[in-house]
Amino acid sequence: MKKFAVLGYGTVGSGVVELFYKNRSKIEEKAGTQMELGYILDLRDFPDSPYAEKFTKSMDTILADAEISVVAECMGGVEPAFSYLMQCLQRGISVATSNKELIAQKGAELLAVANAHNCNCFFEASVGGAIPIIRPLHRCLAANSITEIYGILNGTTNYILNKMLTDGMTFEDALAKAQKHGYAEREPSADVDGHDACRKICILASLAFGKHVYPASVYTKGIREITLDDAAAADALKGAVKLIAMVRQLDDGRILPAVMPMFVPYTNMISRVDGVFNCVEVCGDAIDRAYFCGRGAGKLPTASAVMGDIIEAIKHNQTVFSQNWVDTGTQDFIAGVDELNCGMFIRFAQDADTVKSSQLISELLAEQSHNDIPVTAVKNAALIPAALTKQERNAVLDKLNAQGFEVSHWMPVMEA
Amino acid sequence: MKKFAVLGYGTVGSGVVELFYKNRSKIEEKAGTQMELGYILDLRDFPDSPYAEKFTKSMDTILADAEISVVAECMGGVEPAFSYLMQCLQRGISVATSNKELIAQKGAELLAVANAHNCNCFFEASVGGAIPIIRPLHRCLAANSITEIYGILNGTTNYILNKMLTDGMTFEDALAKAQKHGYAEREPSADVDGHDACRKICILASLAFGKHVYPASVYTKGIREITLDDAAAADALKGAVKLIAMVRQLDDGRILPAVMPMFVPYTNMISRVDGVFNCVEVCGDAIDRAYFCGRGAGKLPTASAVMGDIIEAIKHNQTVFSQNWVDTGTQDFIAGVDELNCGMFIRFAQDADTVKSSQLISELLAEQSHNDIPVTAVKNAALIPAALTKQERNAVLDKLNAQGFEVSHWMPVMEA
Repeated sequence: MKKFAVLGYGTVGSGVVELFYKNRSKIEEKAGTQMELGYILDLRDFPDSPYAEKFTKSMDTILADAEISVVAECMGGVEPAFSYLMQCLQRGISVATSNKELIAQKGAELLAVANAHNCNCFFEASVGGAIPIIRPLHRCLAANSITEIYGILNGTTNYILNKMLTDGMTFEDALAKAQKHGYAEREPSADVDGHDACRKICILASLAFGKHVYPASVYTKGIREITLDDAAAADALKGAVKLIAMVRQLDDGRILPAVMPMFVPYTNMISRVDGVFNCVEVCGDAIDRAYFCGRGAGKLPTASAVMGDIIEAIKHNQTVFSQNWVDTGTQDFIAGVDELNCGMFIRFAQDADTVKSSQLISELLAEQSHNDIPVTAVKNAALIPAALTKQERNAVLDKLNAQGFEVSHWMPVMEA
Repeated sequence: MKKFAVLGYGTVGSGVVELFYKNRSKIEEKAGTQMELGYILDLRDFPDSPYAEKFTKSMDTILADAEISVVAECMGGVEPAFSYLMQCLQRGISVATSNKELIAQKGAELLAVANAHNCNCFFEASVGGAIPIIRPLHRCLAANSITEIYGILNGTTNYILNKMLTDGMTFEDALAKAQKHGYAEREPSADVDGHDACRKICILASLAFGKHVYPASVYTKGIREITLDDAAAADALKGAVKLIAMVRQLDDGRILPAVMPMFVPYTNMISRVDGVFNCVEVCGDAIDRAYFCGRGAGKLPTASAVMGDIIEAIKHNQTVFSQNWVDTGTQDFIAGVDELNCGMFIRFAQDADTVKSSQLISELLAEQSHNDIPVTAVKNAALIPAALTKQERNAVLDKLNAQGFEVSHWMPVMEA
């Protein structure tokens, strides 16, 4: 019999408890042993809960129980979650966490302590909710040199952008609807300004490239400035505006992580990921590309990932899986967003003649040896599907403005 | 230092060797040890290969080398692969195989012997090529009750159906093109008649539900009868015809596996999987649904999956992962395809008035208490997006025929 504890009885924590009792016999069969929920840590009181007798307000009570073999952390925030998990790992107790802020800030440290104490720090639930992505990336794709990762990693912003595109809602109205449905917080900054997606791409980038990428090192731009016109023009140019969290390895070995709205052509499956779903595209030298999609948040979907980690920690409690990365002390292996070579989705300040604008752009590209690029245009936007350097992009923008095609703004284009 | 051997130097086997030498330092880092390719087993001679000195024609040579810790089997077919892998496992040597025919026929037996001898029989490459699906299904989603799995598991047929839809090619022309590009064999029956997809859904069903599902127990229908008109009518009704391999658990606990062409609405991501890509949709009680997509075949994509298994077998050579299922001695837990409740994509023998046909179908559905079903029709086809029993389907078909709307054929509809 193996005992586990759950820290935090919010949406995810209560989901873990619910899922355990719902599928207990199946879960125990997978774990290869009988299991028991020992404790639920929460500062609040839940006197009417069917699990009332499991609640404790003291982490020490949990740490003092030698029978606890796994602790699931679903509290969120860096502290006290970090201190609690460090205490567990130092005692050789494996942990499973859904806390992306914690892993994005303290992952290297937690993983090192887990390794040193022959136990595991699992965090499948921290990225992509229900979607299996940490294990597949770390294990199934282990033989690949990962070259790029792209993801829709925040369901709230994807829901908002989707409503703008399909229902013609403004950003403000779509946000209000997301808040009404409980998809967005009353204080929506973590979602709409891209911070949540940023933490998740930090975790994927750290795992894929072996060095801790801190959120502060990642260019992060949210979706507040996206307009209905952007969404409609993108659709007319056969693509969708999506908040993309990405990381790419450059030729010199540095990596370029960023979070920003991008134009995604309809030929790329990521453009078809709608509503609150998340999707991660992983590119590697052997696999070409693979996609992982599913519910990126929610009670039971996220609990599924935490419980999968608990089962693995219990079943293989003698095995250290060490999905490792190190804090190199600097972030100088990270390139800035200006170094991203990419295509451009260009919005004009005034409607323009589509023949003239696309012809002019083709000429400007040819001047820079980008010949035969299939430029397409609608009256208020144009699409350049070629990987341009910053210098090339600036040349195009300057000359467009000089010729009277005033550019209002532009977005990077994801590859097809 | 750990030594491994590769059995079979065809497309996949040579890919494993190529990938190992290409990414060797990365692979060794992931495995946590230096690695060496000990032997390549093949009956043919490769005197000009850079690995000429590794070749052997004798399995006994490999078995006699006590330093071999993993054997990768990429020969295909049941024998001699089965005998070779049994000999390995009985000696405690873990194996990694890409051989779907072998696992679909002998999986239960191989897994039991692996468990008995404290080693692993891995088969990530046997389903979905590069796509991580075996590990995610078995481990990441372990806390779920799996309810349904749907997959595009054969890239050849998906390529053919795609060419019919987008380029208006006939089945015969599309097949010829697939053969020209090397996507289809000269003898294409295993692909186009659904046998390849059948083996793969047998493996996924066995893994998800714990009992060995044999290919002979699975209703299997290929794509030979799909016409250009079917593809065009499906498109007009906002969906694509796809060869779907599926398994669903029924309320009484039995499972219903099947391989057949289905109408997939464009709202389901599976409809967007084009060309030689594969995709698996897994439905579970906690996750709702998750999608896994990528290259389902090819040298390096498949080698990536085999190499991932080799790394895991070497890194965790003391851990038995026991992704188990048992041969129950009967197949009476398997329901026939007639028990599938599903919507219908109906093709008429002659063009019909769309208002009349959809109105009549709505009336027929209402007679059976299926009210307010949004039936849509084009002149030569109609779509019923409701889960009908066989009896209800037959009633609809009989009455349509009786009323002069002669039905040529119909296909099941996947859920949105």
